[in-house]
Amino acid sequence: MSEYFPEVPHIEYEGPDSDSELAFDYYDPDKQVGDKTMKEHLRFAVSFWHAFTGDGSDPFGAPTMQRPWDDIEDPMEKAEARIEANFELLDKLGVDYFCYHDRDLAPRGDTIEESNENLDEIVPLIKEKIDETGIGVLFGSAELFAEPKYAVGAASSPSADVFAHAGAQVKKALEVTNELGGEGFCLWGGREGYKTLLNTDMGLEQDNVARFLTMVADHADEIGFDGQLMLEPKPKEPMKFQYDHDSATIHAFLQKYDLDDRFTLNIETNHATLADRPFAHELRYARLNDILGSIDANQGDKLVGWDTDEFPFSLRDHTLAMYEILQNGGIAPGGINFDAKVRRESFEPVDLAHGHITGMDTYARALEAAHALKESGELEAFVDERYSSYDEGIGQKIVEGEADLADLEEYTLDNDVPHPESGREEKLNALLNRYILEA
Amino acid sequence: MSEYFPEVPHIEYEGPDSDSELAFDYYDPDKQVGDKTMKEHLRFAVSFWHAFTGDGSDPFGAPTMQRPWDDIEDPMEKAEARIEANFELLDKLGVDYFCYHDRDLAPRGDTIEESNENLDEIVPLIKEKIDETGIGVLFGSAELFAEPKYAVGAASSPSADVFAHAGAQVKKALEVTNELGGEGFCLWGGREGYKTLLNTDMGLEQDNVARFLTMVADHADEIGFDGQLMLEPKPKEPMKFQYDHDSATIHAFLQKYDLDDRFTLNIETNHATLADRPFAHELRYARLNDILGSIDANQGDKLVGWDTDEFPFSLRDHTLAMYEILQNGGIAPGGINFDAKVRRESFEPVDLAHGHITGMDTYARALEAAHALKESGELEAFVDERYSSYDEGIGQKIVEGEADLADLEEYTLDNDVPHPESGREEKLNALLNRYILEA
Amino acid sequence: MSEYFPEVPHIEYEGPDSDSELAFDYYDPDKQVGDKTMKEHLRFAVSFWHAFTGDGSDPFGAPTMQRPWDDIEDPMEKAEARIEANFELLDKLGVDYFCYHDRDLAPRGDTIEESNENLDEIVPLIKEKIDETGIGVLFGSAELFAEPKYAVGAASSPSADVFAHAGAQVKKALEVTNELGGEGFCLWGGREGYKTLLNTDMGLEQDNVARFLTMVADHADEIGFDGQLMLEPKPKEPMKFQYDHDSATIHAFLQKYDLDDRFTLNIETNHATLADRPFAHELRYARLNDILGSIDANQGDKLVGWDTDEFPFSLRDHTLAMYEILQNGGIAPGGINFDAKVRRESFEPVDLAHGHITGMDTYARALEAAHALKESGELEAFVDERYSSYDEGIGQKIVEGEADLADLEEYTLDNDVPHPESGREEKLNALLNRYILEA
Amino acid sequence: MSEYFPEVPHIEYEGPDSDSELAFDYYDPDKQVGDKTMKEHLRFAVSFWHAFTGDGSDPFGAPTMQRPWDDIEDPMEKAEARIEANFELLDKLGVDYFCYHDRDLAPRGDTIEESNENLDEIVPLIKEKIDETGIGVLFGSAELFAEPKYAVGAASSPSADVFAHAGAQVKKALEVTNELGGEGFCLWGGREGYKTLLNTDMGLEQDNVARFLTMVADHADEIGFDGQLMLEPKPKEPMKFQYDHDSATIHAFLQKYDLDDRFTLNIETNHATLADRPFAHELRYARLNDILGSIDANQGDKLVGWDTDEFPFSLRDHTLAMYEILQNGGIAPGGINFDAKVRRESFEPVDLAHGHITGMDTYARALEAAHALKESGELEAFVDERYSSYDEGIGQKIVEGEADLADLEEYTLDNDVPHPESGREEKLNALLNRYILEA
Ligand SMILES: [Co+2]
Ligand SMILES: [Co+2]
Ligand SMILES: [Co+2]
Ligand SMILES: [Co+2]
Ligand SMILES: [Co+2]
Ligand SMILES: [Co+2]
Ligand SMILES: [Co+2]
Ligand SMILES: [Co+2]
Repeated sequence: MSEYFPEVPHIEYEGPDSDSELAFDYYDPDKQVGDKTMKEHLRFAVSFWHAFTGDGSDPFGAPTMQRPWDDIEDPMEKAEARIEANFELLDKLGVDYFCYHDRDLAPRGDTIEESNENLDEIVPLIKEKIDETGIGVLFGSAELFAEPKYAVGAASSPSADVFAHAGAQVKKALEVTNELGGEGFCLWGGREGYKTLLNTDMGLEQDNVARFLTMVADHADEIGFDGQLMLEPKPKEPMKFQYDHDSATIHAFLQKYDLDDRFTLNIETNHATLADRPFAHELRYARLNDILGSIDANQGDKLVGWDTDEFPFSLRDHTLAMYEILQNGGIAPGGINFDAKVRRESFEPVDLAHGHITGMDTYARALEAAHALKESGELEAFVDERYSSYDEGIGQKIVEGEADLADLEEYTLDNDVPHPESGREEKLNALLNRYILEA
Repeated sequence: MSEYFPEVPHIEYEGPDSDSELAFDYYDPDKQVGDKTMKEHLRFAVSFWHAFTGDGSDPFGAPTMQRPWDDIEDPMEKAEARIEANFELLDKLGVDYFCYHDRDLAPRGDTIEESNENLDEIVPLIKEKIDETGIGVLFGSAELFAEPKYAVGAASSPSADVFAHAGAQVKKALEVTNELGGEGFCLWGGREGYKTLLNTDMGLEQDNVARFLTMVADHADEIGFDGQLMLEPKPKEPMKFQYDHDSATIHAFLQKYDLDDRFTLNIETNHATLADRPFAHELRYARLNDILGSIDANQGDKLVGWDTDEFPFSLRDHTLAMYEILQNGGIAPGGINFDAKVRRESFEPVDLAHGHITGMDTYARALEAAHALKESGELEAFVDERYSSYDEGIGQKIVEGEADLADLEEYTLDNDVPHPESGREEKLNALLNRYILEA
Repeated sequence: MSEYFPEVPHIEYEGPDSDSELAFDYYDPDKQVGDKTMKEHLRFAVSFWHAFTGDGSDPFGAPTMQRPWDDIEDPMEKAEARIEANFELLDKLGVDYFCYHDRDLAPRGDTIEESNENLDEIVPLIKEKIDETGIGVLFGSAELFAEPKYAVGAASSPSADVFAHAGAQVKKALEVTNELGGEGFCLWGGREGYKTLLNTDMGLEQDNVARFLTMVADHADEIGFDGQLMLEPKPKEPMKFQYDHDSATIHAFLQKYDLDDRFTLNIETNHATLADRPFAHELRYARLNDILGSIDANQGDKLVGWDTDEFPFSLRDHTLAMYEILQNGGIAPGGINFDAKVRRESFEPVDLAHGHITGMDTYARALEAAHALKESGELEAFVDERYSSYDEGIGQKIVEGEADLADLEEYTLDNDVPHPESGREEKLNALLNRYILEA
Repeated sequence: MSEYFPEVPHIEYEGPDSDSELAFDYYDPDKQVGDKTMKEHLRFAVSFWHAFTGDGSDPFGAPTMQRPWDDIEDPMEKAEARIEANFELLDKLGVDYFCYHDRDLAPRGDTIEESNENLDEIVPLIKEKIDETGIGVLFGSAELFAEPKYAVGAASSPSADVFAHAGAQVKKALEVTNELGGEGFCLWGGREGYKTLLNTDMGLEQDNVARFLTMVADHADEIGFDGQLMLEPKPKEPMKFQYDHDSATIHAFLQKYDLDDRFTLNIETNHATLADRPFAHELRYARLNDILGSIDANQGDKLVGWDTDEFPFSLRDHTLAMYEILQNGGIAPGGINFDAKVRRESFEPVDLAHGHITGMDTYARALEAAHALKESGELEAFVDERYSSYDEGIGQKIVEGEADLADLEEYTLDNDVPHPESGREEKLNALLNRYILEA
């Protein structure tokens, strides 16, 4: 078997003083952070779609990526090369998981039968590599957005035939993921939404999405798939409005259709910022409502208006994310999946290594900073103190449901509202910086 | 009793060819549109806060408004003047409703007792004017955001004393609204949210908001208030994130805390656009989930990033809004409340008339366009046809819950996905323009 | 010669009451509006790239467009079919101009020689069609963004070889446009900008763009091209920041490099809104600085963050645009080019007709409204009156440069600032609506 | 003289391990960084308006700030207290400069004479404190936006009387700044722009702004003011569009009116992000065009849409800013002015110290990171190599103006475009993080 990335060595932790460009500055997989190693905390995953089938095209430009399998003509051979390259890259990076859409793994056929056959042909190779390497599937997914038939949605399509096709496709993708021992399956609603309300029956479309998800959950039960089922919030792009807009919007949907015990969320950094929410907000909302499933880690750019899916580099954003994850008791059975692509100007194979190293180092430092912050109790103590009036007296009555408006009025007439306390936001910003810099 | 707006005559419908600046071009109150008059459809309301206590200040500038009561020094006398001016302006505009916060009606006292006494002093005058004119209250509200004690929220305050104070204040405001025969009461969460997650216990805050709303609903029942209780979505400003972010976010909250049968939504145009949603989207979402309560009609500007609360002028936005309202069977017991303020550069009293005339003419035209569009059935027929595959065969099975993934797979293997149909968005845009222009 | 759009008849003006879907409601080409016909005012153009080579792909999806030439395999034959289809569609729409990039007209070869040969092969056909139909070229352009070599810019590329390649390509495109009698040539800086400042020498890049434009202007002179040379502002997408960000940014650039007499601007609606400027602002800025060249008419959507290039439908935006154009004395030698694409969900050939009809009707109505508004003098009189203090006294001195700060101080000490006047924005919004509705 | 901030000690550098909340973690004023001390590099200034007259009000809320001078009733006495508090705080922080608007220093009178008299009364105290402490004025400014007369602009007002009043006010403010030995004077166009184009004569307004600035520059020459004259870009808020939108927009303006040798820019972080430009972009643009004057350091939040003016905390943004400043050879005679306000929820006096400490520590770390990055030459070497094709051959000819399009064509026909090189954005992001973390 050939080597696909000869320019990429096995990436080792060498610390920030290392002269090597292809080494970790901060990610030291076996380093103990609290009760787990970095590797156990972070559960990194590579996104097969960005790393192995992403071609660098954009709305104004042709593919740019230079990949070792570019010259392979036969689609199945090319698919095999990508699979092998995947396991090579993950091994070199020391990453234990990958994520995929069905159509990333094997070429799309002219019919769904053909596509399924292609999957059936490639799955044994993947299983073999999984057995050989111990690398596993964080989650699988079905690609329900690229084909023209899905142009106006899959489960929310105006066409029942398209809905049915999507169902057939998810059935197979779920079965494949089950076979590969996937820890999850993500229903990413790439086009579930609308371009214009003028031609859209929003009520029927949302009911149908719920029907679809119910069928998926039933099938998962039937085949004994015990991974988590997830939805991934995204507010827009390519549609003007997407039904899986953000955590709270999905939460409303899941409650309405009684699906909140069956689905969790796969939360992406860039989708949070596209929805004008801090990434940590989305994580906290999901955590508080017991629907935090996994993370698509990347980086957006509010100075532009689309999903850039950059490799994570913001120390602040991801430290706050790790703080939520630690508060959550960890992210398993989910993980930190790099749903991130190298820029189309970073077209060399080695850039794939650089991108993941950047993301992994960012998360390693974020983990250390968040852990130190949590261990210190500095932030928690501040917050506890700030809300301490709910621990006794009228506050306690409020929290315990023993006060009504008349009680509140009586209390207020009898008591001056005491001098409030400063929120100290400026000091807390410095505190966070200190933990990031000194972790 | 003096006249406050001598420069404003009784505003009459004169049609677009009129030479008068102070006349309606399109709003003809008694004109029949379908089964109701324009007036019955539109149920216009004036926002007391913008029209009578708004002063034109902005973050960089001092008050600019020139108002007939500026020279009155005594706060209660000034309050009475504003009440009288309110009824004069509404009478001249032919508007039947107004909306208020408690602190608009009577001056804030140094204590809540004093504030309550001030309210008790002014309420008889308001009742008298209501009896005299037939003008009524669309909804009341409590102003829980201006005082420093509410700087970090009212029901979501870190301080139980502030929570209690807010409860006492809402109790009185609700009782006053009940006494004035209000058709609704709106809980507008001006600062229910956060500036930074670093110092925020989001879980406790949201639980507390739910506790607060439960107490309010219980008190409403107790005092026999039979108007609707409403929440008003707003995503941000002044806070970075507000818990009443948008319709779906509130819907998630109401379901979680079992409050969805007790509260409806008062949806504001500009708050929808601040949340990157079309106004019609918010209305449709609320309509489909039976929580459409009332409308705060105004206009935002996506080229800036804050709530501009302009008087409505977009023919397109408000025609689409009226289309939703007609689909909803009307907006009663809610109405079209102009939560809109004249620009601070439009500081003359007569600008208040211009602003409302602009808004009322915009809505009158929007009503006619939406009615014609609905009557024609053109749009509905297009949409029905587009989704017709769900009326029979596999589509019907899907909708009736009789299909599982295996059925979908079997169907898909047996049937080609038929040629899709164009969404015709361009044609529909022209169609909408035609209804607007030719209404 | 076959007919490419048999489902599209010759589009006639039938007025809004017509039952025909494929007729103009408002565009009546020979109708006199002031001193010109609608056709003479509007100078419509079709964008060859969107109408004939656009395929409906987006960042998440494959091509969707169904086109009559889809089955033609030979690239040159396909190119010829598109040319013929272009003239057929324009003839049916009654549009007199089209715009193109070099690579739209003829297939890209493996080398620039081959590309040039392909152009040389197709140009005679185009000339023949131009002669035959009287349809002409509003502007040509060179496509300097799709090929991987242009991934980080053309004239602003870090590679001198890429700069040279771009120069060679523009040379040919300009010569072709000259040969076809084009009224303009647009340098659209698709990727002239940066993704990250970290790897960018902004000073050298901007100097190089200026050098490039100077060479282009020199070559235009040399070959006797007497059309206008234009730049098209766009703030971002696909780059994070583009040097041709907006009118004022280009104006700074043109002045700095002494190119302001040689280039004008081709201003696109959607690019203005991407830059958070009203479309009319960009037109007015260009008009006031004598650099208004032509218009790319389309429609953006501030609820999403990218360039949607919809067909124009906002009556308000385009009425304000036409008002600027009328103030400018017309748009010739530029025109109203529909740089607009049918949605990828509007994939049928007939949607091309619907899109253009929607845009043309929108502009026809906008022209009539703007003309009536201008003729009435209502707005102009208001503005003149508002600034009338500059016509005499201290105002006149200020304007004539005869006052210094000491004069102003003396005047201010001697004179109270008179009571200001309201800006009447609300009234003016209603006035504008009235002109739109009653035009 | 009483102490105003007894709870604030003299702030010392204690390093990140210090237990003290009121100490610098990173700012060590006398530490040598390259050829200057931190203090000499950074030239910190406090904004008098935020620190001493800001009251914490926002569009929905009353003042919240608790200040030691709250109980002083006499306006002149209160002004004196603020001046003394200013020098006390600056001394405790070790900050050498402050910035002010005229109306911050002394109370606004009923007339301009009275305002001037108030200034004349307070100036001697300020001079005395300056002499005593060595603390100086980084820049002065005139407050031309709060009074109702300035509601639609000052130099761009529709009223010549307002223009004159603004001129009189700037004359005095400039003279006061001259008397206080200010190193600069900033013309901040708070409302120079428009709310709606409908009532705006943009051409006259911009001409008038140019006339105004010319008078100011002439008066500065006349009185021998040798500080720098500056404009401060801000794209919007409170107006919809402001003429000083961003660096390039002002650059176009300055060139057009021949003022580019007389004015430089005071660039604010948050105004850059409001204009969708990276802060470093604005600095680089100004640097490349020799108009970088000074810096208003703060922090915005793209998840909301207004100017939040937070104290700087982004290590990344400000490291990139310091990198530009080091490339510029320093920022003198400008400085790092904290145009930043404590949140209205941070209302205690001690929060003023926290805010400035946070900002100063952020900039200290940013300076060290930027210095190390610059010294290492890592980034510069990468960029130089990336553009090295312009150092010889065809690239050199291009740069030296010796190539025309024909030369480029000939070169291109003879030479293949060589394999491009990756932009390595991912690696550079990691490199920047490493310098921030290890500085
Ligand atoms: Co994702
Ligand atoms: Co994404
Ligand atoms: Co409202
Ligand atoms: Co609002
Ligand atoms: Co364009
Ligand atoms: Co565009
Ligand atoms: Co500033
Ligand atoms: Co600011």
